[in-house]
Amino acid sequence: MEFIKQPMAIENRSMEIIAPYLEKFSLNEEEVKLYSRMIHASGDVEYANVIKIDKNVIDSMKAALKKGCNIFTDVEMVRTGINKRKLAAFGGEVFCKVSDPAIMDIAKEKGITRSMAAMRSFGTDLNGAIIAIGNAPTALFEVLRMMEEEDIRPAAIVGTPVGFVGAAESKAELAKRSKVPFITVEGTKGGSPIAASCVNAVMYMIDNSR
Amino acid sequence: MEFIKQPMAIENRSMEIIAPYLEKFSLNEEEVKLYSRMIHASGDVEYANVIKIDKNVIDSMKAALKKGCNIFTDVEMVRTGINKRKLAAFGGEVFCKVSDPAIMDIAKEKGITRSMAAMRSFGTDLNGAIIAIGNAPTALFEVLRMMEEEDIRPAAIVGTPVGFVGAAESKAELAKRSKVPFITVEGTKGGSPIAASCVNAVMYMIDNSR
Repeated sequence: MEFIKQPMAIENRSMEIIAPYLEKFSLNEEEVKLYSRMIHASGDVEYANVIKIDKNVIDSMKAALKKGCNIFTDVEMVRTGINKRKLAAFGGEVFCKVSDPAIMDIAKEKGITRSMAAMRSFGTDLNGAIIAIGNAPTALFEVLRMMEEEDIRPAAIVGTPVGFVGAAESKAELAKRSKVPFITVEGTKGGSPIAASCVNAVMYMIDNSR
Repeated sequence: MEFIKQPMAIENRSMEIIAPYLEKFSLNEEEVKLYSRMIHASGDVEYANVIKIDKNVIDSMKAALKKGCNIFTDVEMVRTGINKRKLAAFGGEVFCKVSDPAIMDIAKEKGITRSMAAMRSFGTDLNGAIIAIGNAPTALFEVLRMMEEEDIRPAAIVGTPVGFVGAAESKAELAKRSKVPFITVEGTKGGSPIAASCVNAVMYMIDNSR
């Protein structure tokens, strides 16, 4: 059976197929790249209707990445999905503490989720960093609280938690209350590959590599 | 702000919300659990209309898992998403070679994708195992070829590659040509969390833990 076997050919062809779905939106070239990669990660063109971004978010992420900012994720799948070789070339690293035994103890003790406890524990390390939350609404709520109560200021927040309990609410709150530029998705859809794709999309823009 | 912070309460409430969307399908109790977890992983109830499973796949996966079968994945994100502590309790392990330098060399030399080269390299280790492919259509095509040309017989195949180039075709071919029970999704949707959720759903069924 004949099928395309070259990874970059597959990716380029995917982007061509996605392009017409974005024509009716007034997006600049970089926004098209971001939206395309999110759609590419989900296989779902309906994302075009529910993606919601702050107009400064791409610039803010690019500036932070160029300065070698770190990335903090809620779950291991987001960390796994981020192109760490590319990030290391800019000087950054990805951190996730959801499986850290100390965090697990804190979560159990306080009756909160592990990803919420993990996000809290990062504290002021989040200043100037990119936060990428693909799974846990509770982690996103916690970051909103930290911005408001502890003056934490990340460079940007990618918040695409998925699901039916708290996810849509957490993303609506992000769009309403975030004190820094953000990328999110309205409703129940989202997930780790979507969050990771946002970070990767912006890294590829910086050196125009993909 | 008030929101549910207990992980199992969040999961249980999610499953309650998903249930009405599955009522119109004639699914048994275990199939409902499987479908629910796939929908839970995507935040997308439309999955109910595109999930396609072989009627023996849950039994086949349960039997293999109970015997301590291994799981082979196309990408690291699927490996990350699988509950490895639970799998280890049954005696199994997850393998992924997509980032193995030797595999990268083979892929480059042959002009094929890394996940395709990785799947090929597993060879007869795939017999009796569960294959979980969440990203790469090429890996799924390769498994179909191995079943036909090399008599490889996994216990089951979870094939939910995502995207616009080859994904839908690879999944249609899986449903048509697979020599073993399978789980798949029609069309462009899919992804690593979906593939991982299938494996986790069946593991949780075995000990009725979730």
